[in-house]
Amino acid sequence: MTKNEFMDAKENALKSLNEACDQEKVDEGALPLLSIINKIDGLYTSSSCAGRIVLLEIPHIGDKKGARFLGVWHRTIQQEELSAASKKATKGLLWLLAQAPIIHIGAENLPLADRMVKTAVACGFKNSAIRSLGKTVIIELCSTERLDAPIGRDGGLFCSEKHLTLLVEISNEVIERSSEKMSRLAEKLAKFADFP
Amino acid sequence: MTKNEFMDAKENALKSLNEACDQEKVDEGALPLLSIINKIDGLYTSSSCAGRIVLLEIPHIGDKKGARFLGVWHRTIQQEELSAASKKATKGLLWLLAQAPIIHIGAENLPLADRMVKTAVACGFKNSAIRSLGKTVIIELCSTERLDAPIGRDGGLFCSEKHLTLLVEISNEVIERSSEKMSRLAEKLAKFADFP
Repeated sequence: MTKNEFMDAKENALKSLNEACDQEKVDEGALPLLSIINKIDGLYTSSSCAGRIVLLEIPHIGDKKGARFLGVWHRTIQQEELSAASKKATKGLLWLLAQAPIIHIGAENLPLADRMVKTAVACGFKNSAIRSLGKTVIIELCSTERLDAPIGRDGGLFCSEKHLTLLVEISNEVIERSSEKMSRLAEKLAKFADFP
Repeated sequence: MTKNEFMDAKENALKSLNEACDQEKVDEGALPLLSIINKIDGLYTSSSCAGRIVLLEIPHIGDKKGARFLGVWHRTIQQEELSAASKKATKGLLWLLAQAPIIHIGAENLPLADRMVKTAVACGFKNSAIRSLGKTVIIELCSTERLDAPIGRDGGLFCSEKHLTLLVEISNEVIERSSEKMSRLAEKLAKFADFP
């Protein structure tokens, strides 16, 4: 890929990001980090999620297509919100997920991609890696904290109040740690004015 | 890295693997796949886990160092085994994990690494990626099925029998799917006699 082709790809990505921002489709929590990454020559963000808590119902394990979202929160939650959302369950497996941020980045070349992955790993995004080598190198930044818990079936919630309290507490901790790690990475990258 | 340096690295890795096998430290379920990968010119396996179910106790989320393993099974389990292991819990958070296989592979060059990742993704190892670009390229093959559920605290198990049944059922499904995916990938790679 030539420098010009990369610049075109970056321009398109930034245009899509701005449109998504206008439509409030971008997680606000991720914006400062995305903005800093996009200021770096040779890198652009292609998609992102700042971390979230999800209550979903699926016919069976791994069946993403059949998934029905009963609740999605890009922030910490109250136990009552989870209880209320779980009342919408009808059929299949009920899962509570707490997911760390995932940020996809296009990189102009491999050394830059490798440096970005190493920086992210050092800031706590330990599951970061190079996901594909096409015309553009695609990096995925991801952390390891998570919760993936089956909590009911066929409309029934199997958790006691005490258990729900624990699940909400840990889910909220995933969100809080996600936010801290994004700040840490943004700070680190901001110092790299001359990155790479 | 020269061809000779790579061959030395591969020889060392295979020696370590054989020693680990002799000491029964390698998951038997992964052996056929490891053997096929190691027959491919330019690739060698450096570490592996065939997937497992784990009951562990940690002081707080993410504190891997403080983790205490109460049960580790590289196979499907019975509910009674999980109940028995949970009785060993004393202090901290009690987590049940079901983990898909993770296989690390050294590759001689990037095109080979990229091809291996794409083949693995096509066989269901959707979290596969290039993890580092050093002298040797390191690939990680990993699948997406998992269960990471907090199920108790400070010696107390918070799950009803019905909930435990569900957790064991899904954990066992993770193990069964892991096994199927490893077979599928082994079959696919075996056909690539002339890989790449």
